[in-house]
Amino acid sequence: METENKNQVEMGSNFAPKYDENGLIPAIVQSHATNEVLMLAYMNAAALTKTLETGLAHFWSRSRQSMWLKGETSGQIQHVKEINIDCDQDTLLLKVVVAGDRGCCHVGFENCFYRVVNSNEDGAPSLVITGKKP
Amino acid sequence: METENKNQVEMGSNFAPKYDENGLIPAIVQSHATNEVLMLAYMNAAALTKTLETGLAHFWSRSRQSMWLKGETSGQIQHVKEINIDCDQDTLLLKVVVAGDRGCCHVGFENCFYRVVNSNEDGAPSLVITGKKP
Repeated sequence: METENKNQVEMGSNFAPKYDENGLIPAIVQSHATNEVLMLAYMNAAALTKTLETGLAHFWSRSRQSMWLKGETSGQIQHVKEINIDCDQDTLLLKVVVAGDRGCCHVGFENCFYRVVNSNEDGAPSLVITGKKP
Repeated sequence: METENKNQVEMGSNFAPKYDENGLIPAIVQSHATNEVLMLAYMNAAALTKTLETGLAHFWSRSRQSMWLKGETSGQIQHVKEINIDCDQDTLLLKVVVAGDRGCCHVGFENCFYRVVNSNEDGAPSLVITGKKP
């Protein structure tokens, strides 16, 4: 990246999200109220446009290969209060207020990061569930 | 994914991070003290092992194609207090205490998400700098 362009990407006011080779950009979803990180999902350009237009978080499902309105089935709709973009414009951060039962994860926890990696001294790391259900 | 395997991935204690087609897994880095999201970076298996062994965040640089110890040059070393993994084990969340000047972003801000997307009624969204310097 040439210096002028790098400076524009990093410090400019031009919103130019950088999509990966699959046309996707990762979006971290954070609770606007508690700062808890809820999930990571991916957007394509259409999902981002739809999110900006409606104020409701839309993503691209890599497994289903289709756009989805988060919470359409579960009621856990994410109302987007703020969108941030990082220095090199290849990651989004959404601050949201969650509707419905205020949960997020399809497994039933408040957020998707409900397990901690435990480093055992003798052997492979293992997982312990620490998350709460809404 | 068959049901038994899906259940094991989602609810089991077996730590089995799922790497993408480039051998990488995204890692969200969050401040252990404030819950502020600092950055998103990528780990390969070697960087994850090194992080678990040392307690210091190591990542894989996609641009330089090499492992890096975050903060090696800047002094903004990230001491990892906790690692979480998400439901389908394809995203990590690191809770860290930052050393040095407690900053994170190479551009000079406390975190990489120092710009907000502003939706203008007439025209394309633009960016406004809201981040602070350490």
